[in-house]
Amino acid sequence: MEINKLNQDIKKKYNKYFQQYGSVLLINKNNIIYNSKIISNKSKKSKIFPVIKANAYGMGVISITNILIELGYKNIFLANIAEGIEVRKKFKSLNIYILNCGQPFNAQILIKHNLIPVLNSLEDIKSWEYNSFNNASCVIHLDTGMNRLGLSYSNILELKKTKYINNLNIKFLMTHLAFAENIKKKFNEIQLNKLQKYAKIISKIKNKSIQTSICNSSGIWLGEEYLLNIVRPGASFLGINPLFNKKNPLKETVSLYAQITQIRKAFKGTSIGYGQTIKLKKDSLIATISIGYSNGLSRLLSNKGSVYIKNKKLTILGRVSMDLTVIDISKFDDGELKIGDIVEIFGDNKSLEKFARENGTIPYEILCNVDKNIPKIIV
Amino acid sequence: MEINKLNQDIKKKYNKYFQQYGSVLLINKNNIIYNSKIISNKSKKSKIFPVIKANAYGMGVISITNILIELGYKNIFLANIAEGIEVRKKFKSLNIYILNCGQPFNAQILIKHNLIPVLNSLEDIKSWEYNSFNNASCVIHLDTGMNRLGLSYSNILELKKTKYINNLNIKFLMTHLAFAENIKKKFNEIQLNKLQKYAKIISKIKNKSIQTSICNSSGIWLGEEYLLNIVRPGASFLGINPLFNKKNPLKETVSLYAQITQIRKAFKGTSIGYGQTIKLKKDSLIATISIGYSNGLSRLLSNKGSVYIKNKKLTILGRVSMDLTVIDISKFDDGELKIGDIVEIFGDNKSLEKFARENGTIPYEILCNVDKNIPKIIV
Repeated sequence: MEINKLNQDIKKKYNKYFQQYGSVLLINKNNIIYNSKIISNKSKKSKIFPVIKANAYGMGVISITNILIELGYKNIFLANIAEGIEVRKKFKSLNIYILNCGQPFNAQILIKHNLIPVLNSLEDIKSWEYNSFNNASCVIHLDTGMNRLGLSYSNILELKKTKYINNLNIKFLMTHLAFAENIKKKFNEIQLNKLQKYAKIISKIKNKSIQTSICNSSGIWLGEEYLLNIVRPGASFLGINPLFNKKNPLKETVSLYAQITQIRKAFKGTSIGYGQTIKLKKDSLIATISIGYSNGLSRLLSNKGSVYIKNKKLTILGRVSMDLTVIDISKFDDGELKIGDIVEIFGDNKSLEKFARENGTIPYEILCNVDKNIPKIIV
Repeated sequence: MEINKLNQDIKKKYNKYFQQYGSVLLINKNNIIYNSKIISNKSKKSKIFPVIKANAYGMGVISITNILIELGYKNIFLANIAEGIEVRKKFKSLNIYILNCGQPFNAQILIKHNLIPVLNSLEDIKSWEYNSFNNASCVIHLDTGMNRLGLSYSNILELKKTKYINNLNIKFLMTHLAFAENIKKKFNEIQLNKLQKYAKIISKIKNKSIQTSICNSSGIWLGEEYLLNIVRPGASFLGINPLFNKKNPLKETVSLYAQITQIRKAFKGTSIGYGQTIKLKKDSLIATISIGYSNGLSRLLSNKGSVYIKNKKLTILGRVSMDLTVIDISKFDDGELKIGDIVEIFGDNKSLEKFARENGTIPYEILCNVDKNIPKIIV
């Protein structure tokens, strides 16, 4: 079902959730399927290993993994061991890669839960080599310019001297792009070249060609030469725009709604909310809505954000509080709106991308922050 | 145990959590006990009904409720019905008040789970009166200046005409202060006077004196005349400063830690992180730490925030990413810090209050946002 069609009967359908939680996050499964097809087409013959860390960007890692498995994916990346253990409990045959295995590096727990480590340093490699057996798989992360995780060039040269990787079953080598959303950036090419150079060194040590991976979601749009053997899209499944300042080739998947809790006439000169940060310049019709900064509507939007009711843009008045916010509904006649009416925070009328911009951040952070005290419903 | 003592053996004690989750939130129970005593002394003979909505401000409502019950509290406020049902499952004899019962108002579900509604409008009152029985308790919320929730003066005058409240078992009348943290604000007094005036009207209709409540955490510090019958402190149990621009009379209770995941030398002219937002002006020693915006370290702190290791203040380099952040550790000699060393985000060296200021927000929002993908440990 299209999100715009949804908007019409949200109230009836999810009544119970609004009543009990105040606000509701809807995740459009058909749009995930659509995005998956686009990603798959763009990825050509590369294998696709979805990255769904941070509780699938706040959307619920179990339900998103279910959808991905339905779509045929067999490998996923997660952020840490805790996430790995959680997903392993439900999905026995999925290949689960762990991006950051924590310190001290603990090979036993990885093996126990059948998790595949991404080895980020010589220390990780040494520890894995010492503790793993049975030819257990691993991935090696190479730093090509993020300066964040992965082996540096000098580390890679050390691999030659030591025998750490001689017995390792390296599934592939990966690196991470710093500026993939901007196709014009020469730095992407520099990182690709470095990865290929480093991969040659390691392949030579291992005396066989080892597979490589450089693309996050945005990387897939950089051109076929970046696809390599494996791509690692993440938030693009949720429709987050992989391109910088360009039209989104994907469909946004997530929308956030609250409801009107109360409607009142507020008089000229009266203030609204904590700290009396606004005084009304005229008599106004105002509504209190059932969402605040503990559910994803940032306090930064106090006195400047907006929401939508029946496709009309309505301004936030005063400070956003923890689970309530007041908006100006003077655009409507008295009696036109009712208690219980649905309020769109982002969705049809305002994209997640635009909402994030208004918050001074990116959609990723919005989604991660919305993951609280709110039911997340796959529709 | 004091937080400062804790800092020394965090690594040993919570090793498993750091390894699996990367970052860990510690909640100091003794400080909650200390704060409870301060609140209790300040509240004189008023009854104290703690407010622990939004999953106890992100700290975990079940574990915080357990502590409050140990401390002798028998009444709590929660935000919505979903929270009420969750807490009721574990705690059968606690009196649970629900601040926003959702729309359409559903008396049955409240009665079924033995939850006491705060009635915010004439509609709520009418619905409760029609559907409740057995003399079930309720609270009526009066608006005295927040313009957010509660009956307006004209609503109260209507109560006279209608018979809605005639049969209601009103436990007390409450209102909410807009500017309680600022003792100098005349508006506090205006709100108090309004509440007392409104309470008289309602007491007259009911033909008996009805109890009243105006104080949130900050309100308790406004003076004895504000205490009335019941006070509703919330985040002050966690030590959030109830006073504006004044020394905190409470002890902060929550601290947030990550660990060093990797250390590297980074060369002059190289960039760090997404978008290459920083280029190093000199060769530097840098560390990647296991926390990012999905765990409570806001992306707003990119290139300007700081963290502490061994009591030294260290700057964030480049963009904060989802679960990783890079910091400058050049203040330390090479070899002085090790992978796995503990990093303080806020705690001993930086108060939650200061951290919130750096984020352009208040401690409440920080705590609500930290409640994700992180173990919360009562120590």
